[in-house]
Amino acid sequence: MMDYKTLFETMGRQAKTAAFDMQKASTKMKNDVLARVADILEADMATILTANEEDMKHAVANGVPPVMMDRLQLTEDRIRQMALGVRQVIDLPDPIGECMERTARPNGIRIEKRRVPLGVIAMIYEARPNVTIDAAVLCLKTGNAVILRGGKEAMASNRALVAVLRRALKESGLPEDAVQLVEVTDREAVSDLLRQRAYIDVVIPRGGAGLIRRIVEESRIPVIETGSGVVHIYVDKEADPAKVVPIVINAKTQRPSVCNAAETLLVHREAVDTILPDVIDALIKAGVHLYGDEAIQRLTAAAMPATEESWYTEYNDLVMNCRVVDSLEEAIDHINRYGTKHSECIITENKATADTFMRDVDASSVYVNASTRFTDGFEFGYGAEIGISTQKLHARGPMGLPALTSYKFLVYGDGQTRG
Amino acid sequence: MMDYKTLFETMGRQAKTAAFDMQKASTKMKNDVLARVADILEADMATILTANEEDMKHAVANGVPPVMMDRLQLTEDRIRQMALGVRQVIDLPDPIGECMERTARPNGIRIEKRRVPLGVIAMIYEARPNVTIDAAVLCLKTGNAVILRGGKEAMASNRALVAVLRRALKESGLPEDAVQLVEVTDREAVSDLLRQRAYIDVVIPRGGAGLIRRIVEESRIPVIETGSGVVHIYVDKEADPAKVVPIVINAKTQRPSVCNAAETLLVHREAVDTILPDVIDALIKAGVHLYGDEAIQRLTAAAMPATEESWYTEYNDLVMNCRVVDSLEEAIDHINRYGTKHSECIITENKATADTFMRDVDASSVYVNASTRFTDGFEFGYGAEIGISTQKLHARGPMGLPALTSYKFLVYGDGQTRG
Repeated sequence: MMDYKTLFETMGRQAKTAAFDMQKASTKMKNDVLARVADILEADMATILTANEEDMKHAVANGVPPVMMDRLQLTEDRIRQMALGVRQVIDLPDPIGECMERTARPNGIRIEKRRVPLGVIAMIYEARPNVTIDAAVLCLKTGNAVILRGGKEAMASNRALVAVLRRALKESGLPEDAVQLVEVTDREAVSDLLRQRAYIDVVIPRGGAGLIRRIVEESRIPVIETGSGVVHIYVDKEADPAKVVPIVINAKTQRPSVCNAAETLLVHREAVDTILPDVIDALIKAGVHLYGDEAIQRLTAAAMPATEESWYTEYNDLVMNCRVVDSLEEAIDHINRYGTKHSECIITENKATADTFMRDVDASSVYVNASTRFTDGFEFGYGAEIGISTQKLHARGPMGLPALTSYKFLVYGDGQTRG
Repeated sequence: MMDYKTLFETMGRQAKTAAFDMQKASTKMKNDVLARVADILEADMATILTANEEDMKHAVANGVPPVMMDRLQLTEDRIRQMALGVRQVIDLPDPIGECMERTARPNGIRIEKRRVPLGVIAMIYEARPNVTIDAAVLCLKTGNAVILRGGKEAMASNRALVAVLRRALKESGLPEDAVQLVEVTDREAVSDLLRQRAYIDVVIPRGGAGLIRRIVEESRIPVIETGSGVVHIYVDKEADPAKVVPIVINAKTQRPSVCNAAETLLVHREAVDTILPDVIDALIKAGVHLYGDEAIQRLTAAAMPATEESWYTEYNDLVMNCRVVDSLEEAIDHINRYGTKHSECIITENKATADTFMRDVDASSVYVNASTRFTDGFEFGYGAEIGISTQKLHARGPMGLPALTSYKFLVYGDGQTRG
């Protein structure tokens, strides 16, 4: 067995050294690297596709499910999309150096609070090679070094993509070790990586609930939890019927595999006879399987009985829970109990009801009368997204470039001492 | 043995329920509670002092060292100071509800990013009863619930103080369980507390390096690391000699027991003959024991040999390391290697040198020509301080009220769906 501790200490030390140079890099230098990355991605497409074919061949041999195969596969078009994404990050403002506060104290010292990089970021994710480029590029733009640990199914693709990133860094005069790939794939290796607190400043997991739970449990480095979304839509008794079907269908079916898709529909008892039948019809027509409480089961034979487990489940599929509630408070209680603090929506025309819901529901993003599918860095106007945080510390909700920064206080004196 | 898991789950659930009401409390309601706390502190002084005498008696019997006894002791004057501190927090602006960003997207949705409480905060600290009031009051002002776990030596005092807090909450119509005291004192109990991730949003340890290390290691809840400070002062070759002695003496001796006091002096080789002798003289006159490298030992017989261990040590006492460096870069390397990312100072008249130091030293607060003793929420103008963060995530440096908040996105639509 390999000595992972030594391996990760070495990678950590290299990342730390690279981070020291990255934090000094000007915006132009960082943008030059990104431009090189985009160019090489397009120029070296054949190499990347060959590597990806290797991964795809293994995936077929190992019986990887189709949905995962689709995420794993690269095509010329997908690589061109990647390059386009990289070029869009070039156009985003560089947050590093930004003065967030400026104070002059009575004793004459001046204090500036300025944005700085986080330092070394470890990204842990599944078999999606596009995350390799996306995540690395956002980390580089913000002057950080990154250690990437992707799913083992994508190893050949990730090697090819990381080679592109490192070549771009080298050709731009920045340290290659600002991007490093973890090439060992067994689970114990991750535990050792998660203990390198001396070198790694933050761990960002991206993936399913199981991956994230494991990392939170094992990490001795601060973690930003992302992504897990048991998302609710509450149809109030004062909902506008014309808005209900479009919002519910969009939130559930437009892209069911993502974290901001809805999983549970709550309906006020007074809307059951008036609004709910059309919603149920529309869901069934859209191919959605329903789990319902007794009231829902009485309404439609298509609903299977919901269990306690159902309310906790993120299906990421054309499946939806449905429950009737007696009041706004019962809806809020249900959401705060079973939700994952991601995105929650109320459909109502009553402003006071909406305000109560938005105040009392504990989630990164609370909606009135709009699809929860908007919880996204691009839809929120950030021009980028490293993930969607479901925790309250540091960053919450869609994380743009500033989520990859910290700050420091610069104190300018002229000999001041404390009395 | 008691079932700690059940105990802490119960406390956690109670705290979460209380937090739900606290986040709804208006600024006036929260300020009313603080006013009651201050009044009861003064009115019930006798009860608090009696409880504190009990702690002091135990401390004497257990041979607690004098410096700890001093921190433990309450007097009428100290309680009056506490009440004054509480009243000052009333005057601070309430950050909750503040709109941090407001956007209207092309599709018509409006997004507001607003400050909300963190939720449930666990404070773990040592035998300083004043922290009980300070910390609880800042948590209440920001609409949080708090679970307090102070040092066992202060248990009777903490019980009396928490009774004051809970009575004030009750009399103001807010939930008593917004403040709870952990009354079990063995170490294993803390481990179980640190696993209540379902109920506790953040853990803030305040105390020595050992306490903080243990909590970081054991916690499954996000931690804000505070306080540990191996603070450096670097005397550049272009330092103004008139500023050096006052700054070094102030940073080292004005209050050596605190985290922003200096521990290590670095001196450029070209300043050794010109500037250093006066500094050494002044330090020795101030009763400071020196550990030095060979160059320093040649300069003064008073310096004991510094070891690798010395550079890592936070003395919190009249002891200082001293080392000669050949360049700015060597000083920066030393600081980034041995420092704790707290507060670091350069004394120089060269602006470019100062700028390089301030950019390249990785610390919450970097100084040019001023004592590091200013790293403090009050000195920075925040009017309060829950601790000084030495990590990069969430909050860095002195933490005022906003460090006890998170935010949420409120999305207002009119039926929008994602295309």
